[in-house]
Amino acid sequence: MQTRTRIDVRYPDCDRMGIVHHAVYPIWYEIARMDFFKEIGFPFEEMNRLGVNPAMVDLSLQYKAPATYPQTLYITTRMGAYAPKKLELLYETATEDGAVINTARTFHIWTGPDNKSINLEEAYPDVYEKIRRAAPQQA
Amino acid sequence: MQTRTRIDVRYPDCDRMGIVHHAVYPIWYEIARMDFFKEIGFPFEEMNRLGVNPAMVDLSLQYKAPATYPQTLYITTRMGAYAPKKLELLYETATEDGAVINTARTFHIWTGPDNKSINLEEAYPDVYEKIRRAAPQQA
Amino acid sequence: MQTRTRIDVRYPDCDRMGIVHHAVYPIWYEIARMDFFKEIGFPFEEMNRLGVNPAMVDLSLQYKAPATYPQTLYITTRMGAYAPKKLELLYETATEDGAVINTARTFHIWTGPDNKSINLEEAYPDVYEKIRRAAPQQA
Amino acid sequence: MQTRTRIDVRYPDCDRMGIVHHAVYPIWYEIARMDFFKEIGFPFEEMNRLGVNPAMVDLSLQYKAPATYPQTLYITTRMGAYAPKKLELLYETATEDGAVINTARTFHIWTGPDNKSINLEEAYPDVYEKIRRAAPQQA
Repeated sequence: MQTRTRIDVRYPDCDRMGIVHHAVYPIWYEIARMDFFKEIGFPFEEMNRLGVNPAMVDLSLQYKAPATYPQTLYITTRMGAYAPKKLELLYETATEDGAVINTARTFHIWTGPDNKSINLEEAYPDVYEKIRRAAPQQA
Repeated sequence: MQTRTRIDVRYPDCDRMGIVHHAVYPIWYEIARMDFFKEIGFPFEEMNRLGVNPAMVDLSLQYKAPATYPQTLYITTRMGAYAPKKLELLYETATEDGAVINTARTFHIWTGPDNKSINLEEAYPDVYEKIRRAAPQQA
Repeated sequence: MQTRTRIDVRYPDCDRMGIVHHAVYPIWYEIARMDFFKEIGFPFEEMNRLGVNPAMVDLSLQYKAPATYPQTLYITTRMGAYAPKKLELLYETATEDGAVINTARTFHIWTGPDNKSINLEEAYPDVYEKIRRAAPQQA
Repeated sequence: MQTRTRIDVRYPDCDRMGIVHHAVYPIWYEIARMDFFKEIGFPFEEMNRLGVNPAMVDLSLQYKAPATYPQTLYITTRMGAYAPKKLELLYETATEDGAVINTARTFHIWTGPDNKSINLEEAYPDVYEKIRRAAPQQA
């Protein structure tokens, strides 16, 4: 289970060196993450309705090669580790030729309407089951 | 009555031509506008508490000369026309030497907690009095 | 002759009021403008190769209704007035149902590799002919 | 040797949850990093003149508590590991009361005018000496 998100570089994404600024990638990974959640059956609208949010607690990015404008990129998103209260997601940004130019990892804790940590398995077992099913080679 | 807001250009504000991208200026003018409202005694915290918002209905900018990084700029903000339901603000961005590089005008309508237009003079006469006092040469 | 550009609102485009921040629209209009130039046969890559740039000198926007996340919008772009040294473009942002939520007008002067104003008709008659052909009801 | 950078949260930095969006922090850390380089005697203008750039290869952030608008924050920046070809920097973002809300680590390789990796100690020994002197407890 993995999703593929198309990203078209925007003109102001590039800095004075003519390459995409490093702070743009986290925005792209959020778009990719929302595509992933939509694909597994837990879209933003449903998160919003329940007041459930995958709050970001850790973000790491590796910059391997630059991107520029105009250019089309593709982000592959898949799950890493998961547990009732937390979730790890893994990402790869590649060019149209398949060259990987950036990788990332985000780590989230599930929060409820009061912005406090929740046990997703207990609070929303049906949602947790969707997470479980999207996980690679795991029960 | 006018306010002066210091802006330090940020590295990613510049595009691949090495000049500040045109979409950055509206963000600067919002910072300048918030300084203006704070100075006349109607800071964001108070707007937020009352649920009153100067909703943007029209924005226009004139680009006279480019800015770059690193550079310090100053925005002068003052009132234009005003009425119980609306407000016009005028801005000038200048270099440290006083050369004007950008001018702008924003036009707002006052909205209440339900995001509908309100008559500020009727709803909050004390706030409206602050607006009136900040106006140039007007009763 | 007009182009239609699809815009998918991004999560961070929305401010604390849950609506798309007003400074996001100029970025969208730039995407729409690039689509327009591509469609008439003068894409960014060609501008870049020639060192020719439609430098922004005036930008105005009218905010008619808010947008939110997630939402898909469409921008229609068409030419306004034009002359050998300058160009006006007109834009409309609409929802999928066709409701216009924002309109804009940008005014550009053509600049060359030294960032100085050029007469496009004299410098690049073939490009100017493309502009001419894209104009509504004009010779 | 460490620097302290003041950051004033901007209104559009907050997302629809009313908290600073996670993609804003990398921009703040770049401002802090530039302050650090300026303080040790290697400001952006000098980097630009030499064509030397601390290219970002790895960025990681830990989100401990949210920030909001309006709020003033302070980033403390100091050096981590360093070598002739690379550099690690460490950051902490704290509230005015000193509560740490975010930490980060960036890892850079030094590149020259052709964007290829350089040995800073060999290419610019005087700059490297400045780096060395800014390092904690190291020869």
